Amino acid sequence: MWKELLPLGRAASGGYRRFAWTVPDQECREWFRGQAESRGLDYEVDGNGNQWAWAGDKDAGDAVVTGSHLDSVPDGGAFDGPLGVISAFAALDELRARNVPFTRPLAIVNFTDEEGARFGLSCVGSRLMTGALTREGAHALTDAEGVSLPRAMEAAGHDPGALGPDPGRLARIGAFVELHIEQGRALAETEHRIAVASAIWPHGRWRFDFRGEANHAGTTRLEDRHDPMLTYANTVLAARKKARLAGALATFGKVAVEPNGVNAVPSLVSGWLDSRAPDEETLAAVVEEIERAAGERGGRDGVAVEVTRESATPLVEFDHVLRDRLVALLGGRVPVLPTGAGHDAGILSGSVPTAMLYVRNPTGVSHSPAESAEEDDCTAGVTALAEVLEGLV
Amino acid sequence: MWKELLPLGRAASGGYRRFAWTVPDQECREWFRGQAESRGLDYEVDGNGNQWAWAGDKDAGDAVVTGSHLDSVPDGGAFDGPLGVISAFAALDELRARNVPFTRPLAIVNFTDEEGARFGLSCVGSRLMTGALTREGAHALTDAEGVSLPRAMEAAGHDPGALGPDPGRLARIGAFVELHIEQGRALAETEHRIAVASAIWPHGRWRFDFRGEANHAGTTRLEDRHDPMLTYANTVLAARKKARLAGALATFGKVAVEPNGVNAVPSLVSGWLDSRAPDEETLAAVVEEIERAAGERGGRDGVAVEVTRESATPLVEFDHVLRDRLVALLGGRVPVLPTGAGHDAGILSGSVPTAMLYVRNPTGVSHSPAESAEEDDCTAGVTALAEVLEGLV
Repeated sequence: MWKELLPLGRAASGGYRRFAWTVPDQECREWFRGQAESRGLDYEVDGNGNQWAWAGDKDAGDAVVTGSHLDSVPDGGAFDGPLGVISAFAALDELRARNVPFTRPLAIVNFTDEEGARFGLSCVGSRLMTGALTREGAHALTDAEGVSLPRAMEAAGHDPGALGPDPGRLARIGAFVELHIEQGRALAETEHRIAVASAIWPHGRWRFDFRGEANHAGTTRLEDRHDPMLTYANTVLAARKKARLAGALATFGKVAVEPNGVNAVPSLVSGWLDSRAPDEETLAAVVEEIERAAGERGGRDGVAVEVTRESATPLVEFDHVLRDRLVALLGGRVPVLPTGAGHDAGILSGSVPTAMLYVRNPTGVSHSPAESAEEDDCTAGVTALAEVLEGLV
Repeated sequence: MWKELLPLGRAASGGYRRFAWTVPDQECREWFRGQAESRGLDYEVDGNGNQWAWAGDKDAGDAVVTGSHLDSVPDGGAFDGPLGVISAFAALDELRARNVPFTRPLAIVNFTDEEGARFGLSCVGSRLMTGALTREGAHALTDAEGVSLPRAMEAAGHDPGALGPDPGRLARIGAFVELHIEQGRALAETEHRIAVASAIWPHGRWRFDFRGEANHAGTTRLEDRHDPMLTYANTVLAARKKARLAGALATFGKVAVEPNGVNAVPSLVSGWLDSRAPDEETLAAVVEEIERAAGERGGRDGVAVEVTRESATPLVEFDHVLRDRLVALLGGRVPVLPTGAGHDAGILSGSVPTAMLYVRNPTGVSHSPAESAEEDDCTAGVTALAEVLEGLV
């Protein structure tokens, strides 16, 4: 399965650019459909663009669902998302090879636009299904070129008419299990290949717009400038410091500058803050301190600072019963770990008993072409997922 | 003349995007040709793409040349460049209306790609003519899409075969006078509408590449990161401080980030430093201090810093004889000012007696849609240029 999937959407950097509803994303979706059909599974696409492959009666209810996503961040790695989808098909193959009897329907899912690389909001497919994102909210999403999400779906040949909450589908899911590559080095420092998730830290994205005055870099005296790059730079350093002191994470990984000319003082610098913390109070306090630092420096630079909260995800504690069952099905000796990364599993956990399995990542690198996993660890992931599914179906 | 020129290459922001060899630039060039032909001037384009409109015998030598450029920075203003070209045509009209006899040929010039917005090097047309940029150097220039300068010229219908130094043409120029909008507020604080240039500060552009390691913003511990955004931010603030202490200018106005994703620690941040100072020793010292600060912080962040000098322009002192003659022709009571901005006049001054006139800018704003000039001041600029040309031809 990897052989066909690996070339799709791969850039010269070696990283992946599989953004929702672009050609590489469509190619990945075609791959999914092919995998479903070649196994004789009942293939369907829901109104939000999520792909489903059913073994058993999709209308029976109390289904066991597993899967992940196939889209990527800009220059992302090969495993974040696809490992969960490929492992799902491989685990199903294993259950079938062993003639495991199913008492519940099983589905494999590819949630659309998990990374949010194109429209700025993560987990769009699962948020829409659960109602965490409304139909109106989805219609308001636009990409950097101003193309709205419905128009992008339409351009990719998918009818956006049914975008929105899908409570009927949600009600037919009895449990969701997502397998994912680990995005840190917690397992790398142990002998364990697999872990079970305990919780996802609360996190959010904030856009900081620093507005100054465009001017000539060669003729405007320093004291006459309103240079938003200075305010931005100071805010980047303040964010790191505030996060470190609070035991949280804060990252400015995306910037847009206008006019972005070598010899022009910028008129506007927009910087996106990604922040996460063990609990919601800490997260709110860290972001408030960063905002205050930005405002203070902006006052000195003659730069206006406007902060827009673009997304917010509360603390997710995965279902304890399902989590303990997974640990038991895996023989009991398996680490239980929290993470700072958002997942479709985190979105679904508000509506459905949900659990996650992590596969060891030797370098801990993620969202980068250097992301990696050992073949033996991936195989262990498939085996673990098959054991878990066998216990559930 | 303004009425036809103003709409060309104007963006929704109100600013201009007239980058070399793009469609808006071609439209401006068509406008120039139209102005030349409607006056019965001898129109030609040289091998480097510069446009010339001749009154008198272009081969006679000892010509008086005036003009400026029509391209713009991203979201530039209406006056930077075009004011010098329009004033040249208007001054010629005034001389002809008064039947001023010419003893020397007069040419109006539009130097191509003065701003360097597309290929990263300013004053490409004049640098090529004088040999400050070689044919090989021009062939090595590429834009953000990887299109080389020769290919861009070709795509715009211009043969790049003769790119390179043009000593014969240079030898036929006896004097060059460029009129330009002032790019600061020195005149705004006086009763003077017009100034004569004394010197152009030495200046240069340096690309700082900060290389770290791409990683997931939600799962990578702060202490495990090699985040180049931190090193960049610290360098922006250091540049401002070092420049202030030295009485110089330093600006980071352009940034490029890879992968530039909200939830990814960047692998690479490139920032372009524009720096200028009253003398070359000060400029070298300031840039060295900024490089040192970047390297020190990079060491702490685990980020490699590489600095590439992309352009360098030494101190330009305009020809004293021509400068004093301009002051005398304008009645003696005219300020003589230095500037931090580079111009084609600065490039030509190494080869030909060269002078500049500045027209008052009430806000001092430049390289921005907010750039402005009073109509009376522009008229005074045409009158002054006509007086100067009358004295020279």
